[in-house]
Amino acid sequence: MNQNRFLLLLLLLFSSTMSFTPCVRAQNGIVVFQTDFGLKDGAVSAMKGVAMGVSGDLKLFDLTHEIPAYNIWEAAYRLEQTAVYWPKGTVFVSVVDPGVGTERKSVVLKTKSGHFFVTPDNGTLTLVAESLGIDEVREIDEATNRRKNSEKSYTFHGRDVYAYTAARLAAKKITFADIGKKLLAKVVGIDYQKPTFDKGVAIGSIPILDVQYGNIWTNIDADTFKKLKIAFDEQVNVTIKQGDKIVFSGQMPYSRTFGAVPEGSNLCYLNSLMCFSIAINMGNFSEKNQVFSGPEWTITLKKIAND
Amino acid sequence: MNQNRFLLLLLLLFSSTMSFTPCVRAQNGIVVFQTDFGLKDGAVSAMKGVAMGVSGDLKLFDLTHEIPAYNIWEAAYRLEQTAVYWPKGTVFVSVVDPGVGTERKSVVLKTKSGHFFVTPDNGTLTLVAESLGIDEVREIDEATNRRKNSEKSYTFHGRDVYAYTAARLAAKKITFADIGKKLLAKVVGIDYQKPTFDKGVAIGSIPILDVQYGNIWTNIDADTFKKLKIAFDEQVNVTIKQGDKIVFSGQMPYSRTFGAVPEGSNLCYLNSLMCFSIAINMGNFSEKNQVFSGPEWTITLKKIAND
Amino acid sequence: MNQNRFLLLLLLLFSSTMSFTPCVRAQNGIVVFQTDFGLKDGAVSAMKGVAMGVSGDLKLFDLTHEIPAYNIWEAAYRLEQTAVYWPKGTVFVSVVDPGVGTERKSVVLKTKSGHFFVTPDNGTLTLVAESLGIDEVREIDEATNRRKNSEKSYTFHGRDVYAYTAARLAAKKITFADIGKKLLAKVVGIDYQKPTFDKGVAIGSIPILDVQYGNIWTNIDADTFKKLKIAFDEQVNVTIKQGDKIVFSGQMPYSRTFGAVPEGSNLCYLNSLMCFSIAINMGNFSEKNQVFSGPEWTITLKKIAND
Repeated sequence: MNQNRFLLLLLLLFSSTMSFTPCVRAQNGIVVFQTDFGLKDGAVSAMKGVAMGVSGDLKLFDLTHEIPAYNIWEAAYRLEQTAVYWPKGTVFVSVVDPGVGTERKSVVLKTKSGHFFVTPDNGTLTLVAESLGIDEVREIDEATNRRKNSEKSYTFHGRDVYAYTAARLAAKKITFADIGKKLLAKVVGIDYQKPTFDKGVAIGSIPILDVQYGNIWTNIDADTFKKLKIAFDEQVNVTIKQGDKIVFSGQMPYSRTFGAVPEGSNLCYLNSLMCFSIAINMGNFSEKNQVFSGPEWTITLKKIAND
Repeated sequence: MNQNRFLLLLLLLFSSTMSFTPCVRAQNGIVVFQTDFGLKDGAVSAMKGVAMGVSGDLKLFDLTHEIPAYNIWEAAYRLEQTAVYWPKGTVFVSVVDPGVGTERKSVVLKTKSGHFFVTPDNGTLTLVAESLGIDEVREIDEATNRRKNSEKSYTFHGRDVYAYTAARLAAKKITFADIGKKLLAKVVGIDYQKPTFDKGVAIGSIPILDVQYGNIWTNIDADTFKKLKIAFDEQVNVTIKQGDKIVFSGQMPYSRTFGAVPEGSNLCYLNSLMCFSIAINMGNFSEKNQVFSGPEWTITLKKIAND
Repeated sequence: MNQNRFLLLLLLLFSSTMSFTPCVRAQNGIVVFQTDFGLKDGAVSAMKGVAMGVSGDLKLFDLTHEIPAYNIWEAAYRLEQTAVYWPKGTVFVSVVDPGVGTERKSVVLKTKSGHFFVTPDNGTLTLVAESLGIDEVREIDEATNRRKNSEKSYTFHGRDVYAYTAARLAAKKITFADIGKKLLAKVVGIDYQKPTFDKGVAIGSIPILDVQYGNIWTNIDADTFKKLKIAFDEQVNVTIKQGDKIVFSGQMPYSRTFGAVPEGSNLCYLNSLMCFSIAINMGNFSEKNQVFSGPEWTITLKKIAND
């Protein structure tokens, strides 16, 4: 009897060290950082240090730290471009925060796709909220969710609140509910031209450039573009405006590959996000034509009529 | 009896696989790299490859690799700005080494805070030695602490000695004592104006810019600044010199947030390190006023008298 | 009896949780990424997200993402400069791919050194194939080796095929044979001047600059250089051409350290790769003399005769 009880105890002890428990919690231990801090100083490193202080088992990655200073739109775009390629349960921290110290709320968005976004609610969440869907939004309770002894340091929320909270969430030291009070299921949004098709004309905006190459990436998705019924190698008429001002107007072939046109020629194509895009083969369309990006840029597409 | 002995054996075997041993060693498996190499070539990657060759369990991070070439002062500053946010036991490698091949010593500093710094002793340790305290300094014995077969490669200490030694220390393949002989508890220091207060005037230096935004960060800490008895929204008189030359002179409000002044206006504030700092709301103070940083820059603060 | 059987079962269960199996497979769980994407957008992060989706146990690192756009030669050089410092079994992904969508093959090279390289076969493998030796080359079967649901996205092979395949190979979800059909043991090569010595003259090329400092790195290795019989502090006559045009001609001392010449003076030395190199002490030789790098740059060395 004693021996049996001993065995039972041993087995229980043994079992408790193995993970028989199903993985019921959503986070996966991955934290991905995005900021407009650049990499020249120690700010990003300090954020990661705080995260490693929370748990040495976390896996820390970067989205980008080269968001142009204060450019919330671009922060929103980069999150949306990238988040979906990370596994469910990944926690993103985005700190592009011109309003630090003002009234914007610090929140965590959980999307229907199972990703988490820790950020000031200043427009940064515009696009992921739309594309991944809002599951729940909670306001960070900074009384409980801030780095110990950081109360006096009110200007570096990125490190003391956002990185710290993201790390604790990712490491399962807190649950999503521990973040703070549940808000209405909406986020602060930035207004922009959504892709539309009407009477043979497709309209959209230029959310971003493919900066490294100077290519123009629009938000006109493959489904909208297909309504124009343009086949490979057929010409597309393109007009680009900034506000009311026409900046570029011209035509170019819809191409399967960059190599389908001579070096230095314009082409259009569907990019890796399956959106209508414009490039110069081996060149920089943006610089040459002074076309840039942001919610104030719109683009109009028509099929060239065959006479 | 046999069964009992068997059980005991099983229990011992079992116990030995669990970590009941207290964590008596100081390192935590984290290595943080800082250099002036930039990220355009393979030098940083080679250092990390060497570290992963020492142990695949290490966790490798970056402080920055964008220290301006040969700028030891900035290397010193970045270390001090960042180290304290990393957990105790973290090993830092800093390679900004204009004197490579000359007489400077290769050392490892262990601070009283429990952090390790592997670097040429050329001034890089000035500030962490002051703020974190020197526990012990050891000179790297390069006969025993260098990558195998690297003896002929005398110009890349960063990879063959510093990264390799830091990795072995962090992975506990060597103890701190194995680094080499113990030196006197001091490091090579760079001279600069420390923060002082006398007769209503606070003086300090500008160790660094917040480069991404062009803000001026001084070393005048909150305690020194408070002696001026300046409340939020009161004006501060600021004079900035490079050596003997006055570069900026003017006044600005002490602000709780950037948004407390109009866009384009000067303000001063306590930064995330709780030091007196100067900015333009949504602008670049450094560029506009040609104020930069380094040990030769000093700043003087006075309260504006109320008539 | 029952109890004994129970114990046996417990012991077996227990044993099965420990890793007694020898490590027979070649990969080490490390993936190193190189691209010409830069770090301003989310492309690199998306690649890493895909890899983490394959296995959360992978260890992901960067070589560089600052390869100048479309510069295959520099991609080849950076791989060769760095790979050998990473442990055997490391999987490299290099995506510098001006021919995306054209006829170049997607391959994985296994070198005799035990490293893996996942890349378009467009010249990127020129130098690692030479220095590390070709063990086997396989063409990636994109029918089986691409991210699920990515078939429509034909323009981002880096993420959907290369990162995904590298991650699966590194995580041992597929074997090297699963990559696809075995090709002839050769890769597409870029032509360049190899180091030679004849009649007192050493000739080589300038594969790369040490960009951060503006130093000239040649491919004239220590053994070739030694045939010139030049001792430390002796003068070397140097001629540098781009194609047929002489761009620099002059002499400088062979120096043990940069500090051996005054600030601002030319010197030559053996770099960390043990190759002949040229620098200005505390200056930028490349910028001053407009000497750059690539397969079209050659360099000729002679010993200065003692009269």
